[in-house]
Amino acid sequence: MPISFFEHINRFTNLTKGDFDKVLQYFTIQTYKKKEIILSAGSKCNFNYFVLEGCAHMFFIGKNGTQRTVQFAIENWWITDHLAFQRGNITDFSIQAVDRTTILQIKRDDQKKMLEEFPELERYFRKIFEIAYGASLVRMKYVFDYSKEDVYYHFTESFPEFAQRVPQYLIASFLGLTPEYVSEIRAKKRS
Amino acid sequence: MPISFFEHINRFTNLTKGDFDKVLQYFTIQTYKKKEIILSAGSKCNFNYFVLEGCAHMFFIGKNGTQRTVQFAIENWWITDHLAFQRGNITDFSIQAVDRTTILQIKRDDQKKMLEEFPELERYFRKIFEIAYGASLVRMKYVFDYSKEDVYYHFTESFPEFAQRVPQYLIASFLGLTPEYVSEIRAKKRS
Repeated sequence: MPISFFEHINRFTNLTKGDFDKVLQYFTIQTYKKKEIILSAGSKCNFNYFVLEGCAHMFFIGKNGTQRTVQFAIENWWITDHLAFQRGNITDFSIQAVDRTTILQIKRDDQKKMLEEFPELERYFRKIFEIAYGASLVRMKYVFDYSKEDVYYHFTESFPEFAQRVPQYLIASFLGLTPEYVSEIRAKKRS
Repeated sequence: MPISFFEHINRFTNLTKGDFDKVLQYFTIQTYKKKEIILSAGSKCNFNYFVLEGCAHMFFIGKNGTQRTVQFAIENWWITDHLAFQRGNITDFSIQAVDRTTILQIKRDDQKKMLEEFPELERYFRKIFEIAYGASLVRMKYVFDYSKEDVYYHFTESFPEFAQRVPQYLIASFLGLTPEYVSEIRAKKRS
């Protein structure tokens, strides 16, 4: 069973249940169907998304027409184009539900008000971004340094929950591999 | 002239000069010679670094022996292996002064104490990491989507202050290009 949003926030801060109920009022809850688009490239990035259940990914369409995943979110992960969200800009990325996905979403202005009302949440978000940025640097190391096969195994061993739940073509896209290549190395492993 | 650390913090918060003086006591200031190692791969990552003057980069040595830059910092930028710093782990990265570089450095435990004494700094660090993480997603887009030549031009046009100050071989390493390739496209542009 996934940790609730309340428990997730209180990993890094100490919100009372009463305050948490006030925090929740800044959010709306929405369920997206499998493959439904949550945010479209070319539109303003007005929301930050917290996945309660399911899985979402953020991608762009490359110049050659290929879809390329840059970020995943399963339960208790945040996902958005953070630079565009912070600035209220048009995004080049799309966000899509991988499965049926339930999300808590918050508008930029509401997030600002929420952080003014509950400044202790700054610590929570600082930790979330510190980990995400730190992990992106480590990711860069293994994407650049490992062979394609090792990147795939490193990823699936480090994040077994993903490997089981996320379609192989999305993992391939995230790692810069073709779906055919992933099928090939999986077949090699089985044989 | 570089913005001072005080002004940098107060971009995102409202520290008084008196509080800032107390904040400063958590840091030590150190000047590193050109090419001096600030943090060594294989050692514990105990410090977070804020560049006051000069330039530093974080790199790893790849399996084939090549040095690969994953992060730069010029004036008013933070640099460390954030994941290892947060957890007090051994790092796989090294940090090195590119030029003669003056740095404010803070130990993990001191940063914790400082954030407890001045919780308003959480907002400052949240913003720093939000921007850094958001930029790393955008970087992933152009590294994956642009031709090698376009990556180089996009980078040097977006960050002209780097292009002028940082040696070409480090920019090449950061972008995943060989120094020879960078010389070639620069020669092509001049002709």
